[in-house]
Amino acid sequence: MQRILSTELAHHVGATVKVAGWIHRRRLLKSVAFLILRDASGFAQVVTTPGELEKLSEESVVEITATVTANAAAPAGVELTSPLIRVLSEVAEALPVELHRPALTASLPTQLDHAALALRHPTRSAALRSMAAATAGFRSALERQRFVEIHTPKIVGSATESGANVFRLDWFGRPAFLAQSPQLYKQMMVGVFERVYEVGPVFRAEPHDTARHLAQYTSLDAELGFIADHRDVMAVLTSVVAEMVGHTGAAVEVPAEIPAVHFSEALRIAGAPADEPDLAPAHERALGEWALREHGSEFLYVTGYPMRKRPFYTHPQPSDPTWSNSFDLLFRGLEITTGGQRLHRYEDYLAVLAGDTEPFAGYLETFRFGMPPHGGFAIGLERFVARLSGAANVREVTAFPRDLHRLTP
Amino acid sequence: MQRILSTELAHHVGATVKVAGWIHRRRLLKSVAFLILRDASGFAQVVTTPGELEKLSEESVVEITATVTANAAAPAGVELTSPLIRVLSEVAEALPVELHRPALTASLPTQLDHAALALRHPTRSAALRSMAAATAGFRSALERQRFVEIHTPKIVGSATESGANVFRLDWFGRPAFLAQSPQLYKQMMVGVFERVYEVGPVFRAEPHDTARHLAQYTSLDAELGFIADHRDVMAVLTSVVAEMVGHTGAAVEVPAEIPAVHFSEALRIAGAPADEPDLAPAHERALGEWALREHGSEFLYVTGYPMRKRPFYTHPQPSDPTWSNSFDLLFRGLEITTGGQRLHRYEDYLAVLAGDTEPFAGYLETFRFGMPPHGGFAIGLERFVARLSGAANVREVTAFPRDLHRLTP
Repeated sequence: MQRILSTELAHHVGATVKVAGWIHRRRLLKSVAFLILRDASGFAQVVTTPGELEKLSEESVVEITATVTANAAAPAGVELTSPLIRVLSEVAEALPVELHRPALTASLPTQLDHAALALRHPTRSAALRSMAAATAGFRSALERQRFVEIHTPKIVGSATESGANVFRLDWFGRPAFLAQSPQLYKQMMVGVFERVYEVGPVFRAEPHDTARHLAQYTSLDAELGFIADHRDVMAVLTSVVAEMVGHTGAAVEVPAEIPAVHFSEALRIAGAPADEPDLAPAHERALGEWALREHGSEFLYVTGYPMRKRPFYTHPQPSDPTWSNSFDLLFRGLEITTGGQRLHRYEDYLAVLAGDTEPFAGYLETFRFGMPPHGGFAIGLERFVARLSGAANVREVTAFPRDLHRLTP
Repeated sequence: MQRILSTELAHHVGATVKVAGWIHRRRLLKSVAFLILRDASGFAQVVTTPGELEKLSEESVVEITATVTANAAAPAGVELTSPLIRVLSEVAEALPVELHRPALTASLPTQLDHAALALRHPTRSAALRSMAAATAGFRSALERQRFVEIHTPKIVGSATESGANVFRLDWFGRPAFLAQSPQLYKQMMVGVFERVYEVGPVFRAEPHDTARHLAQYTSLDAELGFIADHRDVMAVLTSVVAEMVGHTGAAVEVPAEIPAVHFSEALRIAGAPADEPDLAPAHERALGEWALREHGSEFLYVTGYPMRKRPFYTHPQPSDPTWSNSFDLLFRGLEITTGGQRLHRYEDYLAVLAGDTEPFAGYLETFRFGMPPHGGFAIGLERFVARLSGAANVREVTAFPRDLHRLTP
C-alpha cells in the first residue's frame, strides 16, 4: 500500500490507508490513547489504546496502517482508528528539547545545540520553509527578467574587496581567502550575459556577536548591464522583493514604487548630524518609522551614501561626487539590501585603485575590454526572512548558524 | 527610446530602434562596412561606412539607433541601416583572445587566464547557459516531488566525512575545515522536511590535476526519507536527470528506466578481476560501451559497491553485507552521480563509528531521536554538463575554475 500524507486523509474517509512520520505527542487516558503523528505535510490524530503507546516515546518513527474515520472534533475532521503500528526507528530517551508545545520553550542556544531536534518544531521548520520560498521568489522574478544563474569561486587569491573580516585558508600550502561576496565575479559576468544572479554562501569573519550578523550567510546577488543609473537597479530590486514576499505568503505590502530619500535628507529625518558618514542602527529605525508614518511603507530606499563609506567600485553621483549612485533598502528599519551603480570605465578603476592593480588583474580585464554601465544588489537572505517573520535573531531562521562562537553542529 | 534585443529586430522592419551591445566583429570593405553587434540574445548586422568603424575596436560597447531594414542575405533576414553610434565604453587595445571566429582558437589555459574575455565567446557562454539550465531542471524536478531547498554550513569543525583532501581554515584563531559535501546536514534535515535538496559549492583539496576534478565544484544534492531501499532513490534521480537534460535542450535520451547492474556483474562486464574493490576509469568506459550496445542507453546504474569502499553512513545490502545499497550513475562511461541508502538507526552508527563519536555528536543526535529509512544522491554539476556538451575538460563549462594550480581570476 502506498503511503499518503496526513493532509490527504480527509479525501479517504472510510478507507484503510498507510501513513508514516514521527510521534509528535502521546496522550494516554484511562481507556483510550491518542497519538499525534507528524509528517512533512502536517499532523494526524490516531486513536489507539494506552498499552500500545506505553513503549513508544516521542520522535519515534512509525508507519501506521489504519482506517480513516470522520470525527468533527478531530483536527481537519478526521482521525485514524484501528491502527496497526510498525516502528521504523525507536527512541529510547527523553528529548533535550520539547517539541510538542505550540511554542519552543528551550532557549535559542539550546535550540542551536540540538539543531537536529529543534528544527523539527513547526515554528523553526516554518521559518526554513520561508527561507526556501523567498529564495524561489528571488529566482523566478529574475529569470522572468532574463537574468542567468551563475556559480562563482568561494576561494580567492587575495582579500580584494575589503581587507577586513576575511577568513584565511591554506590552499595547497599557499594562503588564500574565503570570498566575502561574489561582487567582482558578478560584474565580470555582466560582460557575458548582461544580467546575472547567484544564490550562494558568503563569509565574513565578523568579530561581533549580534542578533543580525552571521559568519556565513546566504547572499542573493544580482547584477545588470545597460542601466541609466542606480534607479534602474532599484526598480529590479523592488520587483524581486515583491516576488520574494509573495512566495512566502507573508502579509506584507511591497509598494509598486518604494519611497526613496537621499542620504543627506535621511540624516535630517533621523535627527543625525549633517556630517555623519553612515547610518547607525538607531537612525535606520527612525527612518523606518518615518517611512511608515509618511508613506505607509515598511520599505524605504536611502540613496546617495557618501562615496568615502562605499567600496571602490561605487559610481559617484554625477551632479556631486561627494555622494554616490548607491542605495540601501531598509525594511522595518533595518538594512536588508545594499546596491548601486558601479564604475564601468577602465580608467576610472585605475584612478580609484591608485596603482594597487596587481591583485585585481583578472577583474580589471573586464573593463579594459568593454563594459556597459551596470549595477546590482545583494540581499542578505537570513536577515530579510528574519525581519519578515518577526524573528528577533537571524539564528532563528538559520538551520546551522556559524558565528564567532559556533562551529557545530 | 527603449532598447530592444537583437533577436527582436525582425518584428520591427521599417522602424527606428535602439540596440546596444558589444562590437563582435568589424568588416571594412572599400565603400561599406559591417559591424556585427553582440548582445545577450544574439547578433545583429549593422551597415555603416568604413570611416565610422575605424576607431572602434572589437569589444567596445555601443548603443546604436538605426533603421531596421529587410535583407534576405543578412542574418535573420534583417540588418540595421543609417546607424547613429554612441560609444558607451571604448576598447583601446588588441584582444588577448580572439572572439569573432566560430570556435575559440586560444588554448584552454589562455582562455582561463583571460576568463573575463573568453567567456564572452558563444561556445563558452552557451556552456554556462547549459549549467544554469541543468540546475533549473534539477530544482524543478525536485520541487514538484515536494523537496525543500536548504542551505547548510560550508565551514565545519572537524574533517568528519573523510579526512583526506580537506582544506584547512583559520576560524577566529581555531582550526576549521571547508565542507567536502553537505552529506551529514542533508541527512539531519530529512528529520525536518523528509525531502531536501541543496545547490552549493563543495571543496576538495584534490592533489591530482585531471580533466574531471576541480577543487571547488557545484554539488546538486538531494536526500529523501521513507524509502524502501536505494532503488527509490534511483527512481527520483532518473526523473531529475531527465528534467536536467530536458532543460538544457541537449539531444540525449534518458530512458524511463535506466538499466542497472550489480557491482559484481559490472566487474565481469568490464573484464576486471572479481576482487577489485572499485571501478577504474577504463572499467567505467567499458561499462558505458556495454550499456549502449546491450540496452541502447547512454546511462547505466552500477549498484551494490563493496561496503569497504563506501563511506561510513552507507547502508549494507541486507542479503549480503559485503555489498552495499549504494549506486553510481554512469553517463557515457563516466561517473556523474553517487548515491545510496544510508544507515538510519542510532545503534548502527555507534557500531560503524566504533567509539569515534565525539566529532559527530550533533549529527548522531538526528538518529538518537528518530529517523526513517532514507537515502540520497549528489550530482557533480560541472562534470555532468561537460559530459552532456561533449567538453573534454570540466574547466570548459566552469566560469572561474579552482584547482591545484589556479586561484585566479
